Amino acid sequence: MGIILCLLKICLSDYMVKIREVIHRLDPYIPGKSIKEIAAEYSLKKEDIIKLGSNENPLGPSPLAVEAIKNEVNLISQYPETGLKDLQEEIAEYSDVSSDEVIIGGDGADEIIDLLGKTFLDPDCEFIVPIPSYMYYEFNLRNHGARPVYARWDVEANQLDVASVMESISEKTRLIFLCTPNNPTGGLIDKNDIETVLNSTDALVVVDEAYFEFANINNVDLLSDYENLFILRTFSKVMGLAGLRIGYGLSNPKIIDYMHRVKPPFSLTNLSHTAALATLKDREYLEKSAQISIESREFLWTELSKIDQIRVFESKANYLLVDIRNTNLNSSEMTEKLLKKGIIVRDCISFKGLDEYWIRISVGTIEQDKKFIKVFKGIIEGNE
Amino acid sequence: MGIILCLLKICLSDYMVKIREVIHRLDPYIPGKSIKEIAAEYSLKKEDIIKLGSNENPLGPSPLAVEAIKNEVNLISQYPETGLKDLQEEIAEYSDVSSDEVIIGGDGADEIIDLLGKTFLDPDCEFIVPIPSYMYYEFNLRNHGARPVYARWDVEANQLDVASVMESISEKTRLIFLCTPNNPTGGLIDKNDIETVLNSTDALVVVDEAYFEFANINNVDLLSDYENLFILRTFSKVMGLAGLRIGYGLSNPKIIDYMHRVKPPFSLTNLSHTAALATLKDREYLEKSAQISIESREFLWTELSKIDQIRVFESKANYLLVDIRNTNLNSSEMTEKLLKKGIIVRDCISFKGLDEYWIRISVGTIEQDKKFIKVFKGIIEGNE
Repeated sequence: MGIILCLLKICLSDYMVKIREVIHRLDPYIPGKSIKEIAAEYSLKKEDIIKLGSNENPLGPSPLAVEAIKNEVNLISQYPETGLKDLQEEIAEYSDVSSDEVIIGGDGADEIIDLLGKTFLDPDCEFIVPIPSYMYYEFNLRNHGARPVYARWDVEANQLDVASVMESISEKTRLIFLCTPNNPTGGLIDKNDIETVLNSTDALVVVDEAYFEFANINNVDLLSDYENLFILRTFSKVMGLAGLRIGYGLSNPKIIDYMHRVKPPFSLTNLSHTAALATLKDREYLEKSAQISIESREFLWTELSKIDQIRVFESKANYLLVDIRNTNLNSSEMTEKLLKKGIIVRDCISFKGLDEYWIRISVGTIEQDKKFIKVFKGIIEGNE
Repeated sequence: MGIILCLLKICLSDYMVKIREVIHRLDPYIPGKSIKEIAAEYSLKKEDIIKLGSNENPLGPSPLAVEAIKNEVNLISQYPETGLKDLQEEIAEYSDVSSDEVIIGGDGADEIIDLLGKTFLDPDCEFIVPIPSYMYYEFNLRNHGARPVYARWDVEANQLDVASVMESISEKTRLIFLCTPNNPTGGLIDKNDIETVLNSTDALVVVDEAYFEFANINNVDLLSDYENLFILRTFSKVMGLAGLRIGYGLSNPKIIDYMHRVKPPFSLTNLSHTAALATLKDREYLEKSAQISIESREFLWTELSKIDQIRVFESKANYLLVDIRNTNLNSSEMTEKLLKKGIIVRDCISFKGLDEYWIRISVGTIEQDKKFIKVFKGIIEGNE
């Protein structure tokens, strides 16, 4: 019996466990480096590293959120709530919608994107992404077997090429992503253009407003007119809670109900729930938070505009896209040189639709901005 | 133009946005009640409610985890790490495997189940679940369009009907779930039976060991012999971190790599990461945590066994399955009566394979057990 089992096992080992075909076509996994690992690799102190790579809030979290977590920390052995009614209501009030138009995600907006995939995408479907834009749409949705169709973001004009979206729509289109302000370019999409798309399709149009608070503009007013509109948002930016992974979506109650049917019931941690509630109640923090980043963005833009060898694009978000092709460095070389000086920025080579000469700088505090500008100029002038 | 758009919209509203067909067949969403809502509904004090419904740790979290969260709470505005190398290494040491055999989920074991679906299930595939067992396998995996095939857990003998699993295997089988100790029955699966299944298929056999610490037995030794074995675990039970949603899987590095390709990179919150590391280092807490629940389980089992009108099943986990058909109450009536007295237990009607006369009692502290027994007896004797 032992010998028979052994032979069987050898046979089996020839044909590996059955994996989905699409998985074989995905890139192998390369783990990211932690701040601790970066500090060790470049002989830096952890606390000296300036993170301008992930569009985080330079102000840190709301003090009320920190306090609320400390008060509730002993409850971490209990499951989170599944209903989240109180948070739904607070988000509804903040967003000027009703609470049955709200769905909350426990892995930030990324979980909402996954729920959109689970609700709307069959393997033979298509979703439209104007590029360059947020890459996670594709990272996640390709797992559902659906096919990305690329429309065009006009980088030079920093605006959506709306005709390219219209041309991309087919019978198979189920989701259309419109990111405004667009990541990584920072430009806004005109409400008229959004309406043009909404009127041209029965696919769901997902307007990603992750950064809307930095632009003082949003598209919630369209929800009552269009049943195929979905607005995607996050607590990771102006709300200062990137580490706790809270996102939300706004749409008509029918769509929200469908998505709730596939939503993992416990995905929001109880501390995330607590922190989100406390932050929404801290209106003073929220105002200050947006204001500081807007001021800092304008400062950083003005200063970077003075550097001849680069082009910096106007942005309505908390980051700036920079074209560095005239510095004689590509984005990989530039980000490496900055990292050696303890500054993390985003190498945009990972954004489809941009070549190897783009970096994205998150807006920091004015002090961080100044340090970055000094180091950046030094590198460009060849002194670093 | 306004009139044309308006007409177009009316036409559109007749054919709703395109939803996946499978979604229409899912149950509508019914949000769960929070403790606050339960307290209000039954005129109870929040702090008097005893939760014996979710198999949480009655000891609460590790003090080291609580301390670590307090120390790191100001970092919640920063994104979590994507690599999680340190936590992978600690889990590997705890589990006696190497770190490339570990994958970590940010929505507890539930996220790992979703990753299994994304990696292994195509719409025309099948997965096998012996019932009654953990219902989330099906809740999640039906979204992938795959079909559940039910094998049988022999409730009376409280053991897996291994023949029923073998008979359920087909060309289309991709995943087979074996939960040990089984939820909600508490019985273990013989290692020989697990090997029998492993040897009979090239589908992935998922051995769910969420409760293994309460049984003092596990199946990690089989990993080196079977490339189609996957072990599923959680920080929600003996580790006392249900609220922070941490789970992990153990398998051969090839499978772990495939799953990492579809894993959302930021799903584990940074406070969850911190708390998990601190808890794994608190070996004193972990030992005490298992020991207290085991002692309490034996106490509760002994006391419940003395009640003539019920049958209580032996369990190797931190819960007991109870047959209440001779109390003249069904599970809905019984759980409602207990709730009025401030005690939450699990109505097992939601478990496929059990009828309306079963409840599951989580093991509490001895004090909580005593309070439960008193109230439970009162209800059975018709005095409450």
